[in-house]
Amino acid sequence: MTTPFPADVYAARLSRARTLTADAGLDGIVVGAGPDLAYLVGVEGDTIERLTALVIPAAGEPTVVVPRMELAKVRDTAVGSLGLAIADWVDGEDPYALVEDALGFAPARFGVSDVLPALHVIPLADRLGVPVLATPALREIRMIKDDAEIAELRRAGEAIDAVHRRVPGLLRAGHTEREVGEDIAAAILEEGHRTVEFVIVASGPNGADPHHEVSDRVIQDRDIVVVDIGGAVPAGYNSDSTRTYVVGEPDPEAARRIAVLVAAQQAAVDAVRPGVTAEQVDAAARDVLAAAGLGEAFLHRTGHGIGISTHEEPYIAPGNALPLREGMAFSIEPGIYFPGAWGARIEDIVVVTADGCVNLNTTPHGLTPAGA
Amino acid sequence: MTTPFPADVYAARLSRARTLTADAGLDGIVVGAGPDLAYLVGVEGDTIERLTALVIPAAGEPTVVVPRMELAKVRDTAVGSLGLAIADWVDGEDPYALVEDALGFAPARFGVSDVLPALHVIPLADRLGVPVLATPALREIRMIKDDAEIAELRRAGEAIDAVHRRVPGLLRAGHTEREVGEDIAAAILEEGHRTVEFVIVASGPNGADPHHEVSDRVIQDRDIVVVDIGGAVPAGYNSDSTRTYVVGEPDPEAARRIAVLVAAQQAAVDAVRPGVTAEQVDAAARDVLAAAGLGEAFLHRTGHGIGISTHEEPYIAPGNALPLREGMAFSIEPGIYFPGAWGARIEDIVVVTADGCVNLNTTPHGLTPAGA
Repeated sequence: MTTPFPADVYAARLSRARTLTADAGLDGIVVGAGPDLAYLVGVEGDTIERLTALVIPAAGEPTVVVPRMELAKVRDTAVGSLGLAIADWVDGEDPYALVEDALGFAPARFGVSDVLPALHVIPLADRLGVPVLATPALREIRMIKDDAEIAELRRAGEAIDAVHRRVPGLLRAGHTEREVGEDIAAAILEEGHRTVEFVIVASGPNGADPHHEVSDRVIQDRDIVVVDIGGAVPAGYNSDSTRTYVVGEPDPEAARRIAVLVAAQQAAVDAVRPGVTAEQVDAAARDVLAAAGLGEAFLHRTGHGIGISTHEEPYIAPGNALPLREGMAFSIEPGIYFPGAWGARIEDIVVVTADGCVNLNTTPHGLTPAGA
Repeated sequence: MTTPFPADVYAARLSRARTLTADAGLDGIVVGAGPDLAYLVGVEGDTIERLTALVIPAAGEPTVVVPRMELAKVRDTAVGSLGLAIADWVDGEDPYALVEDALGFAPARFGVSDVLPALHVIPLADRLGVPVLATPALREIRMIKDDAEIAELRRAGEAIDAVHRRVPGLLRAGHTEREVGEDIAAAILEEGHRTVEFVIVASGPNGADPHHEVSDRVIQDRDIVVVDIGGAVPAGYNSDSTRTYVVGEPDPEAARRIAVLVAAQQAAVDAVRPGVTAEQVDAAARDVLAAAGLGEAFLHRTGHGIGISTHEEPYIAPGNALPLREGMAFSIEPGIYFPGAWGARIEDIVVVTADGCVNLNTTPHGLTPAGA
């Protein structure tokens, strides 16, 4: 079987998913292709136009609905090793009828996974009534990482830290963001990732756009450069770390503001422990920036959960009263953005422990000299 | 503006989308991040947990709902050059209220794009009633390619043909599928694609799995090898072509069956012209295989539309009575699969013309010698 973990791990996850489905008052859930499916049975791949779905009735055995042409691939996962029921279909047949059979009822209260596309949601809603999001059930399991998952996240953190240690040598005046980005992408693979998920090299004014990726802008002396990078290690768990670099000598006012950002990021890391809410962690960073007059420059939430998805629950955002629990893993990444001028962001992945958190990213947090 | 086509192209597409929305009896449509959004306004990127959506009321002006942190990127597309209304939001705010405002009514009959994930579909359904799929409206425009789009598909076809011409030199006994796949991926980029979308190198028994990608299997002398590859050219349009290779001398019975497959593929290509239905084209390939006793070995539909998505309407499948029209572009790719032994598939992209079709892939279709 080609899954990152042994079959009993998936058996336990499936059993827990069924319990949580019942606890959520649902009669069943339909999990489409995507990270939830990878988590529960090891079937990887994105959602496409042919429905692949794991159907978990609250009171019954799971069934995998799968296009016949995907059978071999699906059998080579926990679906095969656990001997799950399979309902296969070919083009021209109706996969939603198979979902209905697998749920064993209609209509009733059922859930669908977050990423299931409208293409499949609407036919299911027409046949079985409007579903709810299965998120409350599924996030309970995916949010809390076990030791094996934390080991993979730690491996991912070490791999991306090794890349950040190489960035000062790759980032230099006269190169374009795109050229530097290509060198960083190669380093991400060399340092132990199986995929490059994203590479942001945002120099000078481009740093003021939090979602800038790369461009043909030539990096200039004295540029401040946001480098936000991540990939997946072979088991599928993701890294994600941001550091802010300066080519040559920094502008003193920029350096002062970035020192405040570092303090804000640290305040949020320090706030993490079981029982504290996601929004309290967000506020910890936000308050430090606001106190320094930089509140308006912080355009986004403080962080996002991470695991086999780069963005997942819990979201560390205003309004999220979710209490943190041991085993949750997420980013802490406040940023400050000055349109037309520059931006900065500092990001670590942390894992909640019994009395605080461990930080999986350990390269220096301050404005880091590059282009030497 | 960084879009593949000038602003007037997007203005015309938006205008046509609004007309088709009204024609479909819808009061409006909500187009999430994905290929429809790229097609209509040039905004690229996949669906993520923050809602970005183009809202097109049948009787009103379109609005783009966008997270504030994505504003700069979105303004640098047709959204900016056409001066479309923008409703931006930050984490903690409710983007679905902005969608409701942009539609200008509630509840009513509205559509959502295929790829909009359940994460956004369900809150919209809760607020505005269950949507329908906007596919009937949107596929009408995306299915029919204009001359500029056909030129990009032709460019993509030439690029992937150049790669296939290099495959015989890359595919040799003693290398693993993965090694050959990496060489092919590099060639895909070298020959003019901006991305590698997929690389299938399915040797010997792996060829019997239509969706096998690559593995560490070492390619053997006399292996039959399915190579199915594609990427996107800079304007975002995709290539997709499959050829079946043999290392050294082929088994005579395999060669005989593959000759039937080539005839089946050609029969389907020959069947393409305006007015013929998608299922008739599918049947043209299927009938040739069935007549030769190979009907059971053909596990999937004959083809799929292609454009800025690798899989889109029209699907060339049993049960699809859609009549073909000039400007439609799709794959013709029958295959035969013998579990435990080998498989073969031949795939071209064709574009429907006034009286037939043009074939964008021109490398030899028969079993092609490799490993020389």
